[in-house]
Amino acid sequence: MIKKITSLLFLSLFVSTTAFAAAPTAESVQASVDSLWVMIAAVLVFFMHAGFAMVETGFTRAKNSLNILMKNFLTVAIASVLYFIVGFGFMFGGSSGGLIGTDSFFLSGREDIGFFLFQSVFAATCATIISGAVAERMKLKSYILLTIAMTGIIYPIVGHWVWGGGWLSELGFVDFAGSTVVHLTGAVGAFITVLFLGSRVGKYSKGKVNVIPGHNIPIGALGVFILWFGWFGFNGGSSLAADPTLVPHVITTTLFSASAAILSSAFYTLIRFKRIDPSLTLNGALGGLVGITAGCANVSLTGSLLIGLIAGVVLVEAVTFIDSKLKVDDPVGAIAVHGICGIWGTVAVGLFDVQNGLLYGGGAALVATQALGVLAVIAWTSVTVGGFLFIVTRVSSIRVSREEELSGLDFTEHGSNAYELKDTVLESNVSSTSPFGSDLVERLNSIGTGNVSDMNQRNTI
Amino acid sequence: MIKKITSLLFLSLFVSTTAFAAAPTAESVQASVDSLWVMIAAVLVFFMHAGFAMVETGFTRAKNSLNILMKNFLTVAIASVLYFIVGFGFMFGGSSGGLIGTDSFFLSGREDIGFFLFQSVFAATCATIISGAVAERMKLKSYILLTIAMTGIIYPIVGHWVWGGGWLSELGFVDFAGSTVVHLTGAVGAFITVLFLGSRVGKYSKGKVNVIPGHNIPIGALGVFILWFGWFGFNGGSSLAADPTLVPHVITTTLFSASAAILSSAFYTLIRFKRIDPSLTLNGALGGLVGITAGCANVSLTGSLLIGLIAGVVLVEAVTFIDSKLKVDDPVGAIAVHGICGIWGTVAVGLFDVQNGLLYGGGAALVATQALGVLAVIAWTSVTVGGFLFIVTRVSSIRVSREEELSGLDFTEHGSNAYELKDTVLESNVSSTSPFGSDLVERLNSIGTGNVSDMNQRNTI
Amino acid sequence: MIKKITSLLFLSLFVSTTAFAAAPTAESVQASVDSLWVMIAAVLVFFMHAGFAMVETGFTRAKNSLNILMKNFLTVAIASVLYFIVGFGFMFGGSSGGLIGTDSFFLSGREDIGFFLFQSVFAATCATIISGAVAERMKLKSYILLTIAMTGIIYPIVGHWVWGGGWLSELGFVDFAGSTVVHLTGAVGAFITVLFLGSRVGKYSKGKVNVIPGHNIPIGALGVFILWFGWFGFNGGSSLAADPTLVPHVITTTLFSASAAILSSAFYTLIRFKRIDPSLTLNGALGGLVGITAGCANVSLTGSLLIGLIAGVVLVEAVTFIDSKLKVDDPVGAIAVHGICGIWGTVAVGLFDVQNGLLYGGGAALVATQALGVLAVIAWTSVTVGGFLFIVTRVSSIRVSREEELSGLDFTEHGSNAYELKDTVLESNVSSTSPFGSDLVERLNSIGTGNVSDMNQRNTI
Repeated sequence: MIKKITSLLFLSLFVSTTAFAAAPTAESVQASVDSLWVMIAAVLVFFMHAGFAMVETGFTRAKNSLNILMKNFLTVAIASVLYFIVGFGFMFGGSSGGLIGTDSFFLSGREDIGFFLFQSVFAATCATIISGAVAERMKLKSYILLTIAMTGIIYPIVGHWVWGGGWLSELGFVDFAGSTVVHLTGAVGAFITVLFLGSRVGKYSKGKVNVIPGHNIPIGALGVFILWFGWFGFNGGSSLAADPTLVPHVITTTLFSASAAILSSAFYTLIRFKRIDPSLTLNGALGGLVGITAGCANVSLTGSLLIGLIAGVVLVEAVTFIDSKLKVDDPVGAIAVHGICGIWGTVAVGLFDVQNGLLYGGGAALVATQALGVLAVIAWTSVTVGGFLFIVTRVSSIRVSREEELSGLDFTEHGSNAYELKDTVLESNVSSTSPFGSDLVERLNSIGTGNVSDMNQRNTI
Repeated sequence: MIKKITSLLFLSLFVSTTAFAAAPTAESVQASVDSLWVMIAAVLVFFMHAGFAMVETGFTRAKNSLNILMKNFLTVAIASVLYFIVGFGFMFGGSSGGLIGTDSFFLSGREDIGFFLFQSVFAATCATIISGAVAERMKLKSYILLTIAMTGIIYPIVGHWVWGGGWLSELGFVDFAGSTVVHLTGAVGAFITVLFLGSRVGKYSKGKVNVIPGHNIPIGALGVFILWFGWFGFNGGSSLAADPTLVPHVITTTLFSASAAILSSAFYTLIRFKRIDPSLTLNGALGGLVGITAGCANVSLTGSLLIGLIAGVVLVEAVTFIDSKLKVDDPVGAIAVHGICGIWGTVAVGLFDVQNGLLYGGGAALVATQALGVLAVIAWTSVTVGGFLFIVTRVSSIRVSREEELSGLDFTEHGSNAYELKDTVLESNVSSTSPFGSDLVERLNSIGTGNVSDMNQRNTI
Repeated sequence: MIKKITSLLFLSLFVSTTAFAAAPTAESVQASVDSLWVMIAAVLVFFMHAGFAMVETGFTRAKNSLNILMKNFLTVAIASVLYFIVGFGFMFGGSSGGLIGTDSFFLSGREDIGFFLFQSVFAATCATIISGAVAERMKLKSYILLTIAMTGIIYPIVGHWVWGGGWLSELGFVDFAGSTVVHLTGAVGAFITVLFLGSRVGKYSKGKVNVIPGHNIPIGALGVFILWFGWFGFNGGSSLAADPTLVPHVITTTLFSASAAILSSAFYTLIRFKRIDPSLTLNGALGGLVGITAGCANVSLTGSLLIGLIAGVVLVEAVTFIDSKLKVDDPVGAIAVHGICGIWGTVAVGLFDVQNGLLYGGGAALVATQALGVLAVIAWTSVTVGGFLFIVTRVSSIRVSREEELSGLDFTEHGSNAYELKDTVLESNVSSTSPFGSDLVERLNSIGTGNVSDMNQRNTI
């Protein structure tokens, strides 16, 4: 086995070619331009991970910040490597019955490395959606296992169905940049995991729904801007070519839907709660972005405004419903943003597609196909994530202990704090250990024997 | 009326064309490259809004952070939608006497959607300049009304004069990327609004000028870096083509002017105040960027260094003068940065333009034209914004009450805090309401009856 | 002398050409695309400075934040201007014996302004590496002097040897994007400076290695993401052309190495310290990026994974060794990240280069050349930085006083704080001075006579 992997590793070696001497032709230059756009778009999508990290950190408590940041960095790292080893092959390899790709592992036999790169950062996006919903209580090791399952197999199979020539694409299912493929898949994974995980201590008590406010909304808001910025690459790059008509159209529909969703969520909260709610409006922007992702190339500018307007209201109602009625504890609203708005965006293509949409005289066929795709992805992801977690939880809990949760995951999983507002040197309580040297072992070992009330004090500034 | 709008909405429906089969030609590929650059530049300009949001949040007090963030997000949203509906038409529609555009509303009859997108994010930039100057005391609803006026009509008309084939462009007025069109227009709007609004409680008392320091300079500084980063798209994209000579030149003059302004503002504050002042140096960078915006394509590299050096000193003196002599309270220095440095940059083209500038033997003609443009824009914006606010203030105050201001706009306008450094669960004072469910109404309603001193405590960490 | 500079200044004046009328050809369009990519890459590299600023601010104490931010902004400013005046000429001017360039000062006689721009932001990167290592105790003025030496002469000469046609390039030394040229040069400068400077008060006391934790890891982590994002331009742009094969390869190896280094540093700290250490994992990501910088175009995808995996472990051991054994106080780990991982990356090309690497049957020749280059750069930078600081320290100390260090550099060098969590207006202790007006002089002057214990209180929140 090891031998086979090693041989595959060497097969995948790539000889970089230096600039060829041949004179450029219009075709060769077009190839350069198309490749360049996909690269830039991939880099923008990569940067979305900074956005996810800031949103998730800002919207949760200070005592869990390092843990969330680690989850975000590890997700990118795992997804990149694993997608190279198996994910890309399952997704874009030669199809077996429209269900799964069966070659191209380690990119063997492939030369479209730019395409791989773009898809690779998408895979990481799908997985990282989960990290927000499970924040503040899931064990880091369990999260890593789940990320491996998501990026290695669960997401690539959905991707194969829709973008890899699989059965859903055969049926005419439209999902230009991934409202369903990326966002709904991630959100269903998040929902199922939260069901296994339960809500945070103190969230639901004595029949009341409690607020556990985020600790740093400005960096969360910055995260939303970063996500929006990256989303132009996410949607725009999905054209896979620098088409001078299509790319501007896609970027504009993306801008419009998010803008409309900000307006509708802001004014809807104003009407419903008598105040413009900042958290819901920020999530509204994200809901508008998820909502336009499926149809960004297929709907008109006006269509994109309508999709966004509806997405903003859907988001507010979805968050309310999930939080207060379903009592499913999703600290950052990821299930509503990526799941409910992902469904809305996918179905909306059936309504607003300028060629086949219901509102354009295309009948209900596309709506039905879109709905079928949504149901198929929900079923697949629920069953696989559910099955996976069922097995994992037989072996060990995926949740930290109550004591660890109260102390904060930064302290219990990493032995450190995200913020240090006191000056340790001036306070004469310099910690006598190094985070780097052998003393660290001492310090970390000592945590187990520490007094919990002490920890609390330390972690609640 | 509704009917007409609806019909316009449907007229604007856009049928996205999929990749055409024709073989690429050098012309078609050049069109792809040019379009690609404008798209990337537009995305960079969009990201400047993250920069504005961070600068404005960081340089003001923690208790008003959410309010400022909401203003920034809503500005982008309103500008995008409104510029599509009317703004673009007023700016780039067929001209009526060189004063205003009269068609192209809802982009009807236009195919240059990429150009629209680029201009759309510019419109949002002009409006958002105001949000910094009016921070910490302007009602959100009044700010929204003003944003509608700015992006829907006031800014587009200035734009028409200079970039839409209007009378100033006929006279030979040069403003490559908008020192006057965007920055001065925004700054004059800000200045007039602050005159209506008055200064913050505690800013000027007993004949003293008090410091109200920003609460988080590191995110403010990050905002400056983000603005600078986006400005390369702002200036570079204004070439509207991927010209291999012009674009590098513009990006380099932009880098040079900001760099020179950092040096001059840092060393000028060192001489004047015996310390390098961080706030003024950060604003110096922005002043250098505003200063080069008009002339970035028309001045030499050395010219750009000189423009920046002078902008840095101008900025320091302008902030001092506005704050201490005029006693106009601009929390983030927006009027000095965008207004005074905008005037300097516009006039500087008359001096440093390598073809017609005074210092290059071009005589005083261009200086005179530039000065005329500046005066015209100041007059137009003062009168329209002043008239608008005169009417608005007849109906209702545009300023929150003194009590609300002291409590902070986050609490009084949004019922929430930007930072939560205490852990509500551990402190056993979990708020028993949900920000999402019907309980929110309860909580928000209860604000009105709350004890103000309680609020203060809660909002001053 | 002044006369000569002035005349050079005017010689460098640049006449911007407006779009030429000639029809595009495949060659001219390719030139546009190549130029466009280098511009975008340069803008991404520029943005890395935001990343450095956030990493260095977040990983040090709150009381030194403004000072670090000023260092970062001033570095970009000084580097841009100085590299234009002399640096570029020393680096890329006509070679004198392979040792130093001797023309092209003020870009005279050069038309490749895009290439200059790209190289200019690289020069700033090299210098800014030092600012992290010397944080919290070096005088701002001394740092500025050192930055002038680094960007004006020390770095450009290394650059000439490797990229300017100098003796190392003649020998076949490979450093595609600068593991040695940029990162090792900066790190050696940092190391030597720290030797002159000494460790921070409280870092090493009574034989113990103390932890001085960073104050805001979330913005530090954001900084790492920004650096990674910008690094795609740093490595990808070094191709200097939009090659549709090479650029995707370089961007993918960059993604893979950083990802692999995250995994190896995370799991290595898990094994070594029983916890995934967030700081070391974040630095691991940077170590992986530095490690792949030399070979990103020359190694296979699998090679990049292996380089990253090793870089992550090397980083952890290097930080530990420097911090605990060498007792060299580098607050942000810059010497390990840029220096040790820079050496590893440079040597790794000798092993993994798919054409001449030892592991590909190329023999030990390339390894030897790479090692020689590393040694030469270490020798040159040590001697020049050491000599420079030896002279400077004869004249005055480069370190702030112990009292100033305890008070924090924000207060003593800038008379201000980075964070203001109390509301000065509500607290009725409004400072009665303006940071902008003449009152500032008063306030700043009063610092010298202030009570140090007061200062401490003020600066330790």
